[in-house]
Amino acid sequence: MPNPLTPLSAAANGLMHRRLFLKAGAGLVGGSALLTAQPAAATRAAWMKAPGRPMSRYGAPSEYESSVGRIGFGVSQPGTTGSGASRTPLEYLNGVITPSGLHFERHHSGVPDIDPDQYQLLIHGLVERPLKFNLESLVRYPMVTRTQFLECSGNSRALLNRTAAPLGCGEIHGLVSASEWTGVPLSILLDEAGVTTQGRWLVAEGGDAAMMSRSVPLAKAFDDALVALYQNGERLRPENGYPARLFLPGYEGNMSIKWLRRIAVTARPAMTRDETSKYTDLQPDGTARMFTFDMAVKSVITSPSPGLVLHQPGLYQISGIAWSGRGKIARVEVSADSGKSWAEAALDEPVMSKCLTRFRAAWRWDGGPTSLMSRAIDEAGKVQPARAAYLEDNGPSTSYHCNMIQAWHVASNGDVTNVYV
Amino acid sequence: MPNPLTPLSAAANGLMHRRLFLKAGAGLVGGSALLTAQPAAATRAAWMKAPGRPMSRYGAPSEYESSVGRIGFGVSQPGTTGSGASRTPLEYLNGVITPSGLHFERHHSGVPDIDPDQYQLLIHGLVERPLKFNLESLVRYPMVTRTQFLECSGNSRALLNRTAAPLGCGEIHGLVSASEWTGVPLSILLDEAGVTTQGRWLVAEGGDAAMMSRSVPLAKAFDDALVALYQNGERLRPENGYPARLFLPGYEGNMSIKWLRRIAVTARPAMTRDETSKYTDLQPDGTARMFTFDMAVKSVITSPSPGLVLHQPGLYQISGIAWSGRGKIARVEVSADSGKSWAEAALDEPVMSKCLTRFRAAWRWDGGPTSLMSRAIDEAGKVQPARAAYLEDNGPSTSYHCNMIQAWHVASNGDVTNVYV
Repeated sequence: MPNPLTPLSAAANGLMHRRLFLKAGAGLVGGSALLTAQPAAATRAAWMKAPGRPMSRYGAPSEYESSVGRIGFGVSQPGTTGSGASRTPLEYLNGVITPSGLHFERHHSGVPDIDPDQYQLLIHGLVERPLKFNLESLVRYPMVTRTQFLECSGNSRALLNRTAAPLGCGEIHGLVSASEWTGVPLSILLDEAGVTTQGRWLVAEGGDAAMMSRSVPLAKAFDDALVALYQNGERLRPENGYPARLFLPGYEGNMSIKWLRRIAVTARPAMTRDETSKYTDLQPDGTARMFTFDMAVKSVITSPSPGLVLHQPGLYQISGIAWSGRGKIARVEVSADSGKSWAEAALDEPVMSKCLTRFRAAWRWDGGPTSLMSRAIDEAGKVQPARAAYLEDNGPSTSYHCNMIQAWHVASNGDVTNVYV
Repeated sequence: MPNPLTPLSAAANGLMHRRLFLKAGAGLVGGSALLTAQPAAATRAAWMKAPGRPMSRYGAPSEYESSVGRIGFGVSQPGTTGSGASRTPLEYLNGVITPSGLHFERHHSGVPDIDPDQYQLLIHGLVERPLKFNLESLVRYPMVTRTQFLECSGNSRALLNRTAAPLGCGEIHGLVSASEWTGVPLSILLDEAGVTTQGRWLVAEGGDAAMMSRSVPLAKAFDDALVALYQNGERLRPENGYPARLFLPGYEGNMSIKWLRRIAVTARPAMTRDETSKYTDLQPDGTARMFTFDMAVKSVITSPSPGLVLHQPGLYQISGIAWSGRGKIARVEVSADSGKSWAEAALDEPVMSKCLTRFRAAWRWDGGPTSLMSRAIDEAGKVQPARAAYLEDNGPSTSYHCNMIQAWHVASNGDVTNVYV
């Protein structure tokens, strides 16, 4: 029998056309017995022979999924409490939303226990009317809802290692997550306070023991900044800034100050400890860029990825996430032959600005060794760079904002590993 | 000082124009000191004086939000275990996504404990090749992600009471939730099995002890039905069908068979116990409609709603959710004078088909008693009916698919209650 999928070939080594993922294209694979489903009759399993457990107050994942948790959550920086990071296990997730319980964490002095009845947000500095808001007043302002990503500027740093470390997708790239954020546009609160003509920047300060502080251009504050109060439908989780955080779509994550207690309008950036001792990019000439706000265009294949073994040749779905701090993802391309040929992936709709976008491609693995790669292009036309090009542009001292293309090697035995190609 | 908001009036009794929620309109309220924020200086709270708690494996809501849980979760039907319903506390949520832990539940014999390694899905009946799928084979098929609502056909039934019961928003309307669902289009699996020319319907059967079963037209199966494997990014929660459920966008919730074990392709509907003893609509002439699949166009104001007291006159945000089983929400109108005048609400983007849509309107409460109402119009042109019109159309025996307009009474003391107007 001729292989009915041949007309759908989109690039070398088994990549198939994204029409496979469009409604009209579903019939194209009909009758091809893509996989090894077995004929059989129905049997009655043990769990059908007695009533199950009753309703619950607040649900939790299945106990069979107990291996899915944040990566590295138990490790604080030496001599500190709650200072460090935990990562989202991207390889176990699908879709766009990150479950709030699995959103990555990056704390500079742990998660403060803030009583919402005592919470206050001060807006002062170069304003006509310094104002203090409590939660009851904040929730009466107009709110908006947006689904957007948050990424730590140190994400994917492991790819800067000289040799490819034996790490998984979440271990390397798990400092990015996406949530539905609901809050009050910061512009409305700044208008209430009345920014004076001298105001050009603001300094946002957190209510944690580290008083994490960052300078933000006022233009961003009046563009799409939120004082976020809700995450994925419910009040913010403690580790994401309960009861209120700044949210700066597309900007490096640490600028979205959690547990937001104070916004001072200023004429110049404050050059705080957190934006000078860290989070600056050392360039090839040894000088540092003063600020790098936008997170660059990026993508990663989450499946297949290390830990997910391909047990036999045949059809697989290549799936991953793409994002850009500069707007929408325009296109994602996938290679199944180590970067020699590329096929356009299907994107799940709706594609949202400054949000994770799920891409999908069908791949018929022939059982031979190869490497899988993805590269994203955003609506600004920026293209995710290959590793060599990234290193050449950014020099040996680069440490933040790593957006190079990830390659996953698939061995003949189906094992998947991190490689440099 | 003249009220700077007068030019934004959109309907009687303080409703303001939805321009307030558009970016360009934010400046319109500038300098008006909309609320009672207080000038003050920053102080250092107790939680800033010591490091907070460390990272965690799988996060949970703040303990200060412990009052937010599913409503009625502790009550099973007499003589049964786990047979009943729990409701989403809509009045505590914002945005579109329902946190998975708060998704409503409706079980007919509790939540089965299904071992994913033993899970199987059988597709048989009028097909060329009866097939059995396990989880490992299912996840290799092409998947899609969509954010859509699920609503129990018995939702909002409390509004059929002769007198308005003293209930809250979640108690009355909490059998609706929205999730990001990811799964394999059912059409692809049916194509694998090869539906014969006699096939017109399917019967879907659950793997719970009740073997919940419903007949579904094949046209729906080939349109937008999913075998859902992921909910809000992670594997399905047990109470939502772990490890796999049918998901029929826009159809009454019980048809989206949880713990899906079997799909039989048939020539006619099976007239199962679950679609004859329940879930049929008695009409005014005493006969029953055979099937009512689509959930009708509907909306409800979640804030203000009972339990949320208005402590003083002034600006409030009216916010709620609207949805339709027939497609996108085209418009939501809000009344602050018991239905005499209506203003168009702002809709959070993107508006998605068969999904909850968050609407928002600004309202300046003058402190007097009144009733707040919302009505939704969908892209098919269907308009949510007033209570009297709904009862006239549906007769005294109606029990499912209640989509009448909800009115919340605001008393002079700020108390909010369920009323019929």
